[in-house]
Amino acid sequence: MKLLKTHKTFGGKTSFWSHDSEITKTEMKFSTFIPESGIVENCFIWLSGLTCTEENFITKSGVQKYLQNSNTMVICPDTSPRGLNLDAEHESYDFGSGAGFYVNATTKGYKDHYLMFDYIALELHNLILDEFLAEAKSPKISIAGHSMGGHGALILGLTFPEQYQSISAFSPIVNPINCAWGQKAFAGYLGEKNKETWKKYDACELIKSGKSHPKKILIDQGSNDEFLEKQLLTQNFIDACKASNQPLEANFHNGYDHSYYFIASFIESHLKFHLGN
Amino acid sequence: MKLLKTHKTFGGKTSFWSHDSEITKTEMKFSTFIPESGIVENCFIWLSGLTCTEENFITKSGVQKYLQNSNTMVICPDTSPRGLNLDAEHESYDFGSGAGFYVNATTKGYKDHYLMFDYIALELHNLILDEFLAEAKSPKISIAGHSMGGHGALILGLTFPEQYQSISAFSPIVNPINCAWGQKAFAGYLGEKNKETWKKYDACELIKSGKSHPKKILIDQGSNDEFLEKQLLTQNFIDACKASNQPLEANFHNGYDHSYYFIASFIESHLKFHLGN
Repeated sequence: MKLLKTHKTFGGKTSFWSHDSEITKTEMKFSTFIPESGIVENCFIWLSGLTCTEENFITKSGVQKYLQNSNTMVICPDTSPRGLNLDAEHESYDFGSGAGFYVNATTKGYKDHYLMFDYIALELHNLILDEFLAEAKSPKISIAGHSMGGHGALILGLTFPEQYQSISAFSPIVNPINCAWGQKAFAGYLGEKNKETWKKYDACELIKSGKSHPKKILIDQGSNDEFLEKQLLTQNFIDACKASNQPLEANFHNGYDHSYYFIASFIESHLKFHLGN
Repeated sequence: MKLLKTHKTFGGKTSFWSHDSEITKTEMKFSTFIPESGIVENCFIWLSGLTCTEENFITKSGVQKYLQNSNTMVICPDTSPRGLNLDAEHESYDFGSGAGFYVNATTKGYKDHYLMFDYIALELHNLILDEFLAEAKSPKISIAGHSMGGHGALILGLTFPEQYQSISAFSPIVNPINCAWGQKAFAGYLGEKNKETWKKYDACELIKSGKSHPKKILIDQGSNDEFLEKQLLTQNFIDACKASNQPLEANFHNGYDHSYYFIASFIESHLKFHLGN
């Protein structure tokens, strides 16, 4: 694990790191914020959306202000492996580089590197525990994200409810098997013909299959989000949770769009949700 | 004035605009934040530093949170004309595009467009009054900035103390005629031989020449700023203000660098300084 740079922020440290991932077999980057005390008991994982890197959230969300006097750190992994040269990897914003979709790819080329599900759930998880929470008494790890990252937070949190003690999402892609972004990504990473295997990476399908989280899930969604109707399909998750009795708080916010300005406006309430008890 | 896009933020509106400038004879862009009430009495002008556009501050500073319930707007102009093709305009980060230095150029080519001093002091000022503060009873306009933009805030505020009712700066270039950034820019915009004309764009020289501001000037400076010793020369301004009895609060902050993480950490105190009375 290599420290690339560090910036004092609200008394604490915003840092950028790289490490050689055993899972993706590439150098992976992530950012962190450690509050001033340096004593870390909890970790808030943020998964970013399409085109983002480890930098977007830590630069634009204002999260440091709210955690400056806490014992909670933030960690923001990059959204895909980088520096490869796979077929179609750099051709579009919604597939390949910057668009890992938090799945374990099984298609040619991608299956050797694009294993973001395992990277987050296993390698980054162990790195958090070993490098940052080694002295914590009862560490709590929560997971959240935006758009593609909200999808990641939901599927990881529902698959590993003991590992991730709370889940929240801004503007998540809740039902990727039924939207164009998800269908393109899953066809590319998992194969067009293997649609049954797509379901384990679909939050609505996970809920339908009986997966659940003991804590209420929090979703915030802008009503003016340009992707709401065709890509995000929020109502499908609301319906699935209702049918399965999964506690869910889904808030629609009048006039807000898909941008980081929306995230900045409501991140404080997500932190309170994750750390409130 | 053309509205390019708007994002709801903390109940208010973060917006991006363009207009055809009569002074720079180019399209100029700026961003604004208008708080939720829509009632604007005061305007906080932010001038950005080298390489920045109208986007950096409004995206990274977190300013919207602090003004959400206020009657103060923010306006952030771009840092230079764009879209021209002058000699050396696009060759380096510290001259030409993104590096207007808030002067009125007098050199060939640049003198027709790079008139950022007049653009801010005259055209943007009138635009603020006409388009945003037309209904304000006793509008207050304050000016602030970072690095090159801190330089801009100081020279504009000291030249027009009635127009800008308070001045603050993060990590400003206070004495450009004595640092490499300033010498390169002033030689390019004003001519190597015309050093006497450089002085009216140098905050230290303005103070020495008898210019002053009735209100205390606020400067925040990171002690770990990589540009402090060779480019910013903060102590020269402290000395000049002391010799001239210009009220100044210059705070050095242990461990902070030249980045927007520093600005985000202390912007709230600048807003309180500007709006506190």
